[in-house]
Amino acid sequence: MSLLHLPHHDGSPLYVSDEAPPLGGTVTVRVRTRAEDPVDAVWLRTTYDAEPVFHPTMATREGDTVWWAGELPVHNPVTHYRFLLVRTLADGQSRQEWLTGAGLVGHDLPDTSDFRLAAFPAAPDWGRDGVVYQVFPDRFARSAEAGHRPTPPWAVPAAWDDGVIFEGEDPRTPLQLFGGDLDGITEHLDHIEQVGADVVYTTPVFPGESNHRYNATTFTSVDPLLGGDEAYARLSTAIHARGWRILGDLTTNHTGDTHEWFRSAAADPDDPHRSFYYFDDDGSYACWMGHGTLPKINHADRDVRHAMVEGPDSVVGRWLRPPYDVDGWRIDVANMTGRLADIDVAHEVARAVRATAAELREDPWVIGEHNHDATGDVDGDGWHGTMNYSGFSWPVWSWLRDPASPARPFGRPVPVPRRDGAEVVDTFRAWQGTLGWRATSSSWNLLGSHDSARIRTVVGGDAAAHRVAAGLQFTLPGVPMVFAGDEIGLEGVNGEDARRPMPWDRTGEWDRETLATYADLARVRRAHPALRRGGLRWAHVDTDTIAFVREHPAESVLVVARRAPGAAFSLPLGPGRHVFGSEAAGADLSAVDGVEVPAADGPRVDIWTLGTE
Amino acid sequence: MSLLHLPHHDGSPLYVSDEAPPLGGTVTVRVRTRAEDPVDAVWLRTTYDAEPVFHPTMATREGDTVWWAGELPVHNPVTHYRFLLVRTLADGQSRQEWLTGAGLVGHDLPDTSDFRLAAFPAAPDWGRDGVVYQVFPDRFARSAEAGHRPTPPWAVPAAWDDGVIFEGEDPRTPLQLFGGDLDGITEHLDHIEQVGADVVYTTPVFPGESNHRYNATTFTSVDPLLGGDEAYARLSTAIHARGWRILGDLTTNHTGDTHEWFRSAAADPDDPHRSFYYFDDDGSYACWMGHGTLPKINHADRDVRHAMVEGPDSVVGRWLRPPYDVDGWRIDVANMTGRLADIDVAHEVARAVRATAAELREDPWVIGEHNHDATGDVDGDGWHGTMNYSGFSWPVWSWLRDPASPARPFGRPVPVPRRDGAEVVDTFRAWQGTLGWRATSSSWNLLGSHDSARIRTVVGGDAAAHRVAAGLQFTLPGVPMVFAGDEIGLEGVNGEDARRPMPWDRTGEWDRETLATYADLARVRRAHPALRRGGLRWAHVDTDTIAFVREHPAESVLVVARRAPGAAFSLPLGPGRHVFGSEAAGADLSAVDGVEVPAADGPRVDIWTLGTE
Repeated sequence: MSLLHLPHHDGSPLYVSDEAPPLGGTVTVRVRTRAEDPVDAVWLRTTYDAEPVFHPTMATREGDTVWWAGELPVHNPVTHYRFLLVRTLADGQSRQEWLTGAGLVGHDLPDTSDFRLAAFPAAPDWGRDGVVYQVFPDRFARSAEAGHRPTPPWAVPAAWDDGVIFEGEDPRTPLQLFGGDLDGITEHLDHIEQVGADVVYTTPVFPGESNHRYNATTFTSVDPLLGGDEAYARLSTAIHARGWRILGDLTTNHTGDTHEWFRSAAADPDDPHRSFYYFDDDGSYACWMGHGTLPKINHADRDVRHAMVEGPDSVVGRWLRPPYDVDGWRIDVANMTGRLADIDVAHEVARAVRATAAELREDPWVIGEHNHDATGDVDGDGWHGTMNYSGFSWPVWSWLRDPASPARPFGRPVPVPRRDGAEVVDTFRAWQGTLGWRATSSSWNLLGSHDSARIRTVVGGDAAAHRVAAGLQFTLPGVPMVFAGDEIGLEGVNGEDARRPMPWDRTGEWDRETLATYADLARVRRAHPALRRGGLRWAHVDTDTIAFVREHPAESVLVVARRAPGAAFSLPLGPGRHVFGSEAAGADLSAVDGVEVPAADGPRVDIWTLGTE
Repeated sequence: MSLLHLPHHDGSPLYVSDEAPPLGGTVTVRVRTRAEDPVDAVWLRTTYDAEPVFHPTMATREGDTVWWAGELPVHNPVTHYRFLLVRTLADGQSRQEWLTGAGLVGHDLPDTSDFRLAAFPAAPDWGRDGVVYQVFPDRFARSAEAGHRPTPPWAVPAAWDDGVIFEGEDPRTPLQLFGGDLDGITEHLDHIEQVGADVVYTTPVFPGESNHRYNATTFTSVDPLLGGDEAYARLSTAIHARGWRILGDLTTNHTGDTHEWFRSAAADPDDPHRSFYYFDDDGSYACWMGHGTLPKINHADRDVRHAMVEGPDSVVGRWLRPPYDVDGWRIDVANMTGRLADIDVAHEVARAVRATAAELREDPWVIGEHNHDATGDVDGDGWHGTMNYSGFSWPVWSWLRDPASPARPFGRPVPVPRRDGAEVVDTFRAWQGTLGWRATSSSWNLLGSHDSARIRTVVGGDAAAHRVAAGLQFTLPGVPMVFAGDEIGLEGVNGEDARRPMPWDRTGEWDRETLATYADLARVRRAHPALRRGGLRWAHVDTDTIAFVREHPAESVLVVARRAPGAAFSLPLGPGRHVFGSEAAGADLSAVDGVEVPAADGPRVDIWTLGTE
């Protein structure tokens, strides 16, 4: 049986009439089944203040498809629902199956994989339809001014073509300063445009005695080494002039121990900033993962909440206003923020960031960093989404990785394993089903970041495999976030090594074919609403192939990703028009009837629009 | 491969050194693998303030078993953990699998099925080691006094042998009064002893204008129709004199509209009880599932929290003290309590009930009713456990039900389906894995209640199948809760019909063989710590067979349940001694080597102790 024949529901417009309904409203939700696969009844089951309640659905036939529609009362801020499919078997017995985010199962199961509808506004359209480009300022580009700035006492100066120090626990690693600055970014916006991105996210720009600046010394101004407030305003203005957006990066979990708040708090137990942190009587304090240089913020304290996240004059608020004028935030270490042992005010902090942003801007976007399971922390009234390492990066890595790659693990004691297509799709499904549709599609599909190995290294330098990864990044539900340099094939075995300066003067080293692929993928994604907002049905999965359709009222597309040579196969879909191929066609892909997916002679990803000739 | 060969962990003493550690402590957790199944490494992964962290484990070989032990820091009140198993395959590739409450999987998955350790006291030993007997007072037994009490104006009097009115929405159903009373229960404690129970749970005894009394008119006294406070004191004293325990039943979600609080609140908008409920300006009010006779309590209101659940003078508190002297509570509609649309103070209420109980008694037990998914509502500092309909009752029903049974569904639009052994075990696993080990083993294994059809009816009257159900009830993790009358084979197609009076005068109708089975099961459970506290490994599962071992440092037992005739099979276990059979032996079961499970000629359940001849 083709996977396309399975009963299906997801949170996309074909299945849900309103993805952000008001509390107390009603939403029509639909399930599709196949007319050839007789189903007696489909019941919509929801929970009403945690009590299960069943609602009927009505069937309508449309060609080979039967649509079952039910009215879902939006009784709670996050309303859980699932479907019960009832069939009569040949022997007269009744068969009952549950359709949840985990798929169709013949046993009973808890509600962790229930579909969910959140009565909170969705992430902004510009975010969900955008392509994000991540810049690590010290390594992106130097303006002419950069060379005139004095090296600060803490820094280990580096020339742009120097190698990155990343081995072991070398104390120079965070201090090696290449001198990239904000005007350098402003000068290279054309490159970002060439990639096809329209949202620029920079890692922190606060002064900090490190090249990464995640250990801020103050939140009140931009690091003079980056050009200061004026340079930030120039960058922000230039980005907005293109109709683009800019996102800031703020660590809410901790500050540096050189931060002005911490210095005064540590110096004087009676200092008003003392309560901003978790000091014990003996002067010791809680910190990030035991690192004394990163003291943890005590968000149970009203004063620090006010200073940091609540209201227009908080750190969060001030940067959303001119001259900085950021359109939203990426929140660093969002998972740990507000959590310490038996204290958990994480949701209050997320809610405050979101509320502050909503107070100051029409359509802000807030993304929380989470490198494990963000379920429950997203899709409420806090973070719109997360950096989806668990549900996107690791499964893609595990499908495409070269077992001989020197890429180092990220936050785990062993490298990400190589897995086959079925296991990888099981991973996608497990995360999509638990995180929920809207949270998944508002989260970032990233192939790596300044914290991880580069995808090019993960796939063992195989450019075609890299392009398959990019193909999945731009076509699976979620927002592509490209770490600057990925598009030209930069390598890096871990997060530190991945922070290699952009080789603007060594364009001969650029992988221009891959750059063109990114641009093409961004163009195709922008042209096809199905790739941005369509539902997701798995069409064909085997060891080396992952194929899926993205379906939207406007149109549908088929995506076929292969990690290795493979035979032709056919899918029970209408005629398709080939609109993208990451590699030169090995067969005529331009117009196929069926769809007959041609054989492949190596890793490649192709996209067809469906129902059009 | 036998299921016994799979790597395993659960929350029982063989695997966890302390099931209720202090916050900040460390617990040793272990995984077992087979020596013949080479594993390179097992990593313990926990989350630390929501950040994943890996810890090493050390291997020790013990015969055919390898034990991998790691030290788990108890950093959060509920600490999540799982294991990563790393193997090297024949081709030199690395294979990684996760072991969670969902079993061993080859893909990545969210933390909903992670193992969990709660830094809160466990449920009391008397509860977890006990057998609960549920009494519905109006239908259990009448003392001599009962006949002398006048029939209240609201009641429809019934003689003890009358049929129960249960069809349709007959208005007489809740009013039909049979007149059972508390002294009637006291007079029949010997029967309860015969069943093997030692915890008596009665449904509400507050006055209410119905036979079920879930619509209390006051919480200050016992219904005079039941004999009043004095009769309750006699019952409580008699129960305690046997070394047993007694549990009350309180609806925290709502009261009746005849309750004194509601009457004064409805009569006067300025009445201090007005805030106890959710009144709108127009005098309308929130109620249970739209039933105006059951107005919902507003637990966000401090005054009602104080009156109902907080402190020694609250309803919860007063009944925990003499003369009532209950040992704990079964909380009705616990799932909905404190939840209404965007209000959710459910945990605060549960915490208050638990704290009040702990203030007044040394070892109270609080069980919350939940007929769906209690995950997150149990195993913290609130409810110790739940009535485990989802994780126990429905899977057992679905394995054993007679498709032709007239048993009506409970809270769903279609009857529970008949499912095969594998699907049923998948259900057990899904719930145990999500609810968590300690919460599962502190929850009630029930085959039905006053709210559902009787198990005897579910299995189509098949006494042997009924005894298989009872066998699972007493041997799977959880505390058996027997609804009075099940033990003698009473029938009932739904909750109302199930409330048939106990036929004390028609003992010829009793199924004495089944009664003896319950007594035997209670005896065996009491004699074997493995059945009360042991771990659970599935040993053999097919369509008609479910076999498992319960393992404990003191001893291990094998349980084999069959729903139909089946062939002999063998299990890779040490020699066993047969200690229980629900049916006469079809073969010599008394001493087997192997274990060779003999063929069965119909539904039956057998228990062997292992490692002893």
